[in-house]
Amino acid sequence: MDAPTEQQQPAQLSSGNDREAFRQTLWNTLLRRSFYLPSFKIYGGVSGFYDYGPPGFALKNNILKFWREHFVYEEHMLEIECPSVTPEAVLKASGHVDKFTDLMVKDDKTGTCFRADHLLRDYCNDKLEKDHLTISAEQASELKNVLALLEDLSCQELGLKIKEYGITAPHTKNPLSDPYPFNLMFQTSIGPSGQSPGYMRPETAQGIFVNFRDLYYYNGKKLPFAAAQVGQAFRNEISPRQGPLRVREFTLAEIEHFVDPENKSHPKFSNVAELEFLMFPREAQLSGQSAKKICLGEAVAKGTINNETLGYFIGRVYLFLTKIGIDKNRLRFRQHLANEMAHYAADCWDAEIEASYGWIECVGIADRSAYDLQAHSEKSGVALVAEEKFAEPKEVEQLVITPVKKDLGIAFKGDHKKVVESLEAMKEQEAMAMKATLESKGEVEFYVCTLGKNVTIKKNMVSISKERTKVHQRVFTPSVIEPSFGIGRIMYCLSEHSFSTRPGKAGDEQLGLLSFSPLVAPMKCMVFPLVQNQQFEEGAKVISESLTSIRISHKIDMTGTSIGKRYARSDELGVPFAITVDSDTSVTIRERDSKDQVRVSLKEAASVLSSVAEGKMTWQDVWASFPHHSSE
Amino acid sequence: MDAPTEQQQPAQLSSGNDREAFRQTLWNTLLRRSFYLPSFKIYGGVSGFYDYGPPGFALKNNILKFWREHFVYEEHMLEIECPSVTPEAVLKASGHVDKFTDLMVKDDKTGTCFRADHLLRDYCNDKLEKDHLTISAEQASELKNVLALLEDLSCQELGLKIKEYGITAPHTKNPLSDPYPFNLMFQTSIGPSGQSPGYMRPETAQGIFVNFRDLYYYNGKKLPFAAAQVGQAFRNEISPRQGPLRVREFTLAEIEHFVDPENKSHPKFSNVAELEFLMFPREAQLSGQSAKKICLGEAVAKGTINNETLGYFIGRVYLFLTKIGIDKNRLRFRQHLANEMAHYAADCWDAEIEASYGWIECVGIADRSAYDLQAHSEKSGVALVAEEKFAEPKEVEQLVITPVKKDLGIAFKGDHKKVVESLEAMKEQEAMAMKATLESKGEVEFYVCTLGKNVTIKKNMVSISKERTKVHQRVFTPSVIEPSFGIGRIMYCLSEHSFSTRPGKAGDEQLGLLSFSPLVAPMKCMVFPLVQNQQFEEGAKVISESLTSIRISHKIDMTGTSIGKRYARSDELGVPFAITVDSDTSVTIRERDSKDQVRVSLKEAASVLSSVAEGKMTWQDVWASFPHHSSE
Repeated sequence: MDAPTEQQQPAQLSSGNDREAFRQTLWNTLLRRSFYLPSFKIYGGVSGFYDYGPPGFALKNNILKFWREHFVYEEHMLEIECPSVTPEAVLKASGHVDKFTDLMVKDDKTGTCFRADHLLRDYCNDKLEKDHLTISAEQASELKNVLALLEDLSCQELGLKIKEYGITAPHTKNPLSDPYPFNLMFQTSIGPSGQSPGYMRPETAQGIFVNFRDLYYYNGKKLPFAAAQVGQAFRNEISPRQGPLRVREFTLAEIEHFVDPENKSHPKFSNVAELEFLMFPREAQLSGQSAKKICLGEAVAKGTINNETLGYFIGRVYLFLTKIGIDKNRLRFRQHLANEMAHYAADCWDAEIEASYGWIECVGIADRSAYDLQAHSEKSGVALVAEEKFAEPKEVEQLVITPVKKDLGIAFKGDHKKVVESLEAMKEQEAMAMKATLESKGEVEFYVCTLGKNVTIKKNMVSISKERTKVHQRVFTPSVIEPSFGIGRIMYCLSEHSFSTRPGKAGDEQLGLLSFSPLVAPMKCMVFPLVQNQQFEEGAKVISESLTSIRISHKIDMTGTSIGKRYARSDELGVPFAITVDSDTSVTIRERDSKDQVRVSLKEAASVLSSVAEGKMTWQDVWASFPHHSSE
Repeated sequence: MDAPTEQQQPAQLSSGNDREAFRQTLWNTLLRRSFYLPSFKIYGGVSGFYDYGPPGFALKNNILKFWREHFVYEEHMLEIECPSVTPEAVLKASGHVDKFTDLMVKDDKTGTCFRADHLLRDYCNDKLEKDHLTISAEQASELKNVLALLEDLSCQELGLKIKEYGITAPHTKNPLSDPYPFNLMFQTSIGPSGQSPGYMRPETAQGIFVNFRDLYYYNGKKLPFAAAQVGQAFRNEISPRQGPLRVREFTLAEIEHFVDPENKSHPKFSNVAELEFLMFPREAQLSGQSAKKICLGEAVAKGTINNETLGYFIGRVYLFLTKIGIDKNRLRFRQHLANEMAHYAADCWDAEIEASYGWIECVGIADRSAYDLQAHSEKSGVALVAEEKFAEPKEVEQLVITPVKKDLGIAFKGDHKKVVESLEAMKEQEAMAMKATLESKGEVEFYVCTLGKNVTIKKNMVSISKERTKVHQRVFTPSVIEPSFGIGRIMYCLSEHSFSTRPGKAGDEQLGLLSFSPLVAPMKCMVFPLVQNQQFEEGAKVISESLTSIRISHKIDMTGTSIGKRYARSDELGVPFAITVDSDTSVTIRERDSKDQVRVSLKEAASVLSSVAEGKMTWQDVWASFPHHSSE
């Protein structure tokens, strides 16, 4: 094989300048080769929107195809598809109408809008970087503290800091308004009346939650089961940055795995228990350690990861990301800190991928407990519950609280209904304590929250007991474990992990190389006639037709450009193999990363290519089976 | 094989009542088996929105998968993906902001909105059906005339008819407002400023047009080439009807094939030229004939279909639809009448599928000439053109108009610039006429539209000649041939063509049957243990694991329901095969439509199933190779 070529390894980039230069080189390549096209470019573009050009779309589609195989088909998930336009009621229940906001400030004169936290962050970072020689240690520590707490600052606190630091609008230096919340959903109106507000969904998950009952029936009323949805989601960013990582429309692939809250074990957990990879548990973050390799089975056994099902999905996400080509040394699973996590969540981990922008959250894997189904149950009035039928009826001890309405009516008149309701709502512990006090003292002080005061309950006003009854089933709200994938972010990070440059023959030029695996590469193969002549072009067409008939994606390039330039173009597109027709009877097959070539008969070419492109053979097998070819 | 069973053939349904009953039976089945779920059902639903439940999504996804194979991969199309949110400039240029409207009337008291043409159509149909004994022949003919012209009525004409007939609001009988245009795009606002109006795209095509230049470069500046896009499109219907056929959000699959307007031949036309199928040319429609079988090659040769490329796509669409299972006897290609067609279109044909609702437009195949690219060129100022480099420079005769600015300045003072521009803008014929008049009479009257008046041009003021020059290339705006597929409509019509009922064993019950081909069926196979015991369940799991590993979609059903009921459920889901585990060593495979069963060893089951499901073997082959099994 060829001697290994010097490559610029992005993993070794450390300084900010190197990262910036690496990113710029990659981004230029991705734009020049039409992986991305700035949307509506001929009209000047709109920030936060990118199109996927042909190779970008193919890469994304291949990632999604493998996602579906790895998750949906492997686990027999129920995949559904719901509209993006969503009526207000659904997003009111989910909390998005009230809480899906970022804090915004406006340039007082021009009206230009900015994210308040971004301005404050930029100010602190700038000060720490540029003025580090002039500011005091105390000032520096205060700025670092602000950066650490940035996400937790209230609207008022943010406003005060902006005033205190005298932060003004970028460029114009005009004064800024106080911060106020801006809802990030694209709003619209359903139907012609103007009376039905709607939004473009901020996530696909809600479509699954509102269908829970039908999906549960479809699954034969059995738990656990998972539903999945892939589709567009929308986020009307205030001022999008970070190129393709923070866009206003993006593809989410979300899984909602519904499980009995009393049994979160997973039958296939043993398949992933022995995996070891970088985890960054809460304690490690708080004690200033870094992420380290932990065995998944141990993390669940020790309770670092809350339960087996959550652990199973973390393991499957690890396998998915590394199989498509994410570098396992630049992938970590970071646990949410208590203050990051929604109050209802049992546990939450993000798969973060290291890129030139830092660690990027690409997949969230959360145990959201029963929150979503309960919220929609309450708002819609439709019970979103599961049942466990007992094989035999069970005798259970149940608390029975019987307020004596007549006596309560005499004692509390118009307030007596609220007292009755409060008595009935007592949990077991409180009720049994009341029973004991009533029996020993004959009366008890009782706080009625709907009245906002204590009342005195006497022994004759309520009877409290525990009774044994037979029950035939248990009705409960399932917990949901949600792995949620930002497909665009995964794809961009994969491009960073796959990109390098190597010297061209000319010496000083550096050629770009995207080392996508055949599983996800935009095309499996390029087909080149060595030179423009009828024979070779005929041969190329024959091979192209064979490849088309067995559905091997490829492109035929008949241009008269030198074969070296065509290989370079193919490498930049991330195409793993190239077939060059240079005779009547045989062709060469070249592998992108090694640049090695073998000679194969024209007749066999398509089938050899398909074997190696679909993983039935490795390149090593091909290298061992066919005569080597050198283009020198 | 079994004796043919009596089936209710939907193709034979003729009366409106039969159609209505057939549709209701099918729709109940599709809802009960979760092919469709009314979106946001627990919140009361929103009309015009449907979710695809698990089998519906799988069916749709399989149709799209085959679409991509049949069109994108087969023709090496450039598939891209653009956002749904679209800024106003793009849709202003495309004409959607001004013209994508329906005429609406409002109930004067309640404000409820209706489509004006629908109310008028319902009125006419009702009158013709219910009052046919009391209305005069003259009245009947007038109503029929209105129905025929319905789509061509102007806003004012519609309003006059509604007044004339005294049409009131349905249900309330309140008076109606005059009709006015309602734009059917969902409007939103991009970014936080409120200054950037945006819309949810009404079609995916515009995303391709605005990217033409990049795609043309990506294709090595060669024509013809096609780009494709699959994605959601949106149409804020005034009052959606016809269930899944007229929805507010739907999936379009669109192809834009760019071609030299001077050469619309297609190299692969001969592959489809011999196809014969139902066509409904303009002349046949106008002369009251019905659609008839025409050979595609002849239709193009005779000019019935405008050109080979348009004909090629019509043929490919025919093959696509019939391969997924559309009945070729209920599929016709109808040419647009002159008044239906946009003024710029060269020719336009709709693939219409007959369903219980009538003939449904499912695919439009239009030669849109250069319209779209020219519109975006003009509005954006970016040339969207292609070049043909000549092998050798060509000598051409070019018109040269040289206004003598000095003399024009003296004659027309401040107006002289406008006179110069008007002179330069003359077309060849006008210029040569001027030259002749100047030579014979010495002066000529010339209308300057920017001045709104005639001026007198004298011989000394302009020189007009024709000169031979060499040109090296031709620059032109490509024509676009657009096949545009409504995937949801195709899918619903396919369900109608696939649905029938057959008597169950119980006698009076009718069992539903969806005869989807393995190519598109939601699952290829069901796996059943004959009865609930550990042996059979183990066998079923082993088969399920084998099927999963070779990516054959299936579902395992362990319920204790009778095998007959499980077969019936499987038939209703459109699953073509069922494997029943009834011994330690062997299983039966049942084919859905014939209900025939063969016995296959447990080890072979998955591979036999995969061969027949993927078309490598026919069921006839399987029937000939394995012992038959009778469940009687």
